[in-house]
Amino acid sequence: MRYGLSNTLGALLLASAQLAATLAMAADAAKPEPLVIQEQGSFAVGGTSTAAPGTFDPLKPLDPAGQTYHGDHAFAFYQVPVNPRRYPIAMWHGAGQFSKTWETTPDGREGFQNIFLRRGFSTYLIDQPRRGGAGRTMAETTVKPTADEQLWFNQFRVGIWPNYFDGVQFSHDPEALNQYFRAMTPNTGPFDMDVVSNAVAKLFEKIGPGILFTHSQGGGPGWLTAIKSDKVKAIVAFEPGSSFVFPAGELPADMPSAFDTLKGVPVPMDDFIKLTEIPIVIYYGDNIPDQPTPMPAQDSWRVRLAMARLWRDTVNRHGGDVTVVHLPEIGIRGNTHFPFSDLNNVEIADLVSTFLREKKLD
Amino acid sequence: MRYGLSNTLGALLLASAQLAATLAMAADAAKPEPLVIQEQGSFAVGGTSTAAPGTFDPLKPLDPAGQTYHGDHAFAFYQVPVNPRRYPIAMWHGAGQFSKTWETTPDGREGFQNIFLRRGFSTYLIDQPRRGGAGRTMAETTVKPTADEQLWFNQFRVGIWPNYFDGVQFSHDPEALNQYFRAMTPNTGPFDMDVVSNAVAKLFEKIGPGILFTHSQGGGPGWLTAIKSDKVKAIVAFEPGSSFVFPAGELPADMPSAFDTLKGVPVPMDDFIKLTEIPIVIYYGDNIPDQPTPMPAQDSWRVRLAMARLWRDTVNRHGGDVTVVHLPEIGIRGNTHFPFSDLNNVEIADLVSTFLREKKLD
Repeated sequence: MRYGLSNTLGALLLASAQLAATLAMAADAAKPEPLVIQEQGSFAVGGTSTAAPGTFDPLKPLDPAGQTYHGDHAFAFYQVPVNPRRYPIAMWHGAGQFSKTWETTPDGREGFQNIFLRRGFSTYLIDQPRRGGAGRTMAETTVKPTADEQLWFNQFRVGIWPNYFDGVQFSHDPEALNQYFRAMTPNTGPFDMDVVSNAVAKLFEKIGPGILFTHSQGGGPGWLTAIKSDKVKAIVAFEPGSSFVFPAGELPADMPSAFDTLKGVPVPMDDFIKLTEIPIVIYYGDNIPDQPTPMPAQDSWRVRLAMARLWRDTVNRHGGDVTVVHLPEIGIRGNTHFPFSDLNNVEIADLVSTFLREKKLD
Repeated sequence: MRYGLSNTLGALLLASAQLAATLAMAADAAKPEPLVIQEQGSFAVGGTSTAAPGTFDPLKPLDPAGQTYHGDHAFAFYQVPVNPRRYPIAMWHGAGQFSKTWETTPDGREGFQNIFLRRGFSTYLIDQPRRGGAGRTMAETTVKPTADEQLWFNQFRVGIWPNYFDGVQFSHDPEALNQYFRAMTPNTGPFDMDVVSNAVAKLFEKIGPGILFTHSQGGGPGWLTAIKSDKVKAIVAFEPGSSFVFPAGELPADMPSAFDTLKGVPVPMDDFIKLTEIPIVIYYGDNIPDQPTPMPAQDSWRVRLAMARLWRDTVNRHGGDVTVVHLPEIGIRGNTHFPFSDLNNVEIADLVSTFLREKKLD
């Protein structure tokens, strides 16, 4: 008994010391709470492989004969917090981007990777096939350094170069713009909806039921992924840019804009109906005009938002649960094409958390 | 006093409960201790930019006129544990690889990212310019899917395809080989020693004094990085593959092998001498022959190990502190070209930790 009591007191004293250290750390207001990560790592998933005809000769290593090539996989970096929530979140970038999209924001704050880890979710950050670390492509491509950053500044609705939109949720620090431009990385093969959705569907088959966040170009293959894998339990789509899928007989009229002509993508009804079985929320930011404008960047988003609404109506008519949130309509102003890394991204994360709670996904 | 005592007891009880939870978690032998991360994130660093002549017209966004292009930066994902050691470790991949090199091993165990976080070091995982997430290249390149994996199986000394070396420190699980092949990603621009070392030198200027780990092709530009930035306080080089730098007047004779002819790279003495000012350790694995062999993969490593020893002697003759560790010579057998992710990578990490302790770098 005596030793037992002594041990208990010793344990209490040790624990007390630990508590003091914890309190001291919490008192250091400059530092956020540490992230407590039970497990983290990375892997490739999905993809295909080929073999060159012939027999490999180790004396001729540069001769492809008989050699294999694996490619078109996705790559994922994952983190599992201690006591994670039920569903992990897989985060999928848009055009010209990679997993970085969800990491540190251009102005150096925490992105959705950290924010949702702090909220107890496991996160899987995706590089889609032929992008970033998943560069091993099955299709030859030439990467050209083409001057295009003013296009992106406008297309991503930071402003109309060289001017920022009034009240835009994007830092005016030149270093933020430097980081923003350098967060892009090229395709190492042609963008292919089927290739990328195949790999991300395999990701869900590997990790089990989860939530899919998509951005922009990831939106279209995101719908295909949910069609291909019933492990996708919800989709949070930020500014899906194209490739809304409709039942073959219910395609909307083409939507011309000053940028391009947006078309619905037909899929069989048996596939489409799978999108009615999960909750989906779509967010669009600010500075999207209601009426046609000659400015390509703005006009492209006018038709995209319009088609998102048509798509919502079509899915819901078939029994689905799609919500389109145009942020300015709920009083949230200044968001660019990247609401999850904009200056108000914690407010955007709160919207997403509310959605997940309402749909009993957290 | 009474309230004070009561509060103290309450705190002790709470702390005791926390301790119990901690002990329960520790008792779950299947799970390693959680990683406690004070801060994590990512950024681009270094690089250059260009601007196309003319004036940007927002009505013609696809016309490069007047648009800019930022590229040739490095990309880094970093994690800072609570109460980190003095020096962070920047980890730099080799040819055909990216930051993934240091993450989960091909057979699914923890790589050096997690191992050195657990040992209290901040880690910065690098994608060098024109690789992985740092794909925005200043030089046009065509990415070709060339069947070459048996070349790498042999060159990386896993075995002589399709046979594994006896006792090789590499899992025979086919999924390990699948992950290994898919951990490769192509150059999006020509490999350029100056471009990549410029960016990594900028990384050190940003993060301050630290330790550089390099692998294979990263070895050569690693020496240049230490020449360019005095913030590099030590180098741990795993199997540097080429580009040993010598004083212009002290170049060794060319070293022909069945694979290629290895040449020293001349640098001015004022630059070379900087490499004498920091401790450097170089590790090579197993299955490197002493004598010439017609097998290109093996013979290439014979001359690389030989030149590493000449280089060690040259740096040390000028007052340096370079150690070459050929692992089989200290009884550690079966290592491939990737000792840090081989089956015995904890043993290799222990060697590195001993080096860092001896050099007072931890």
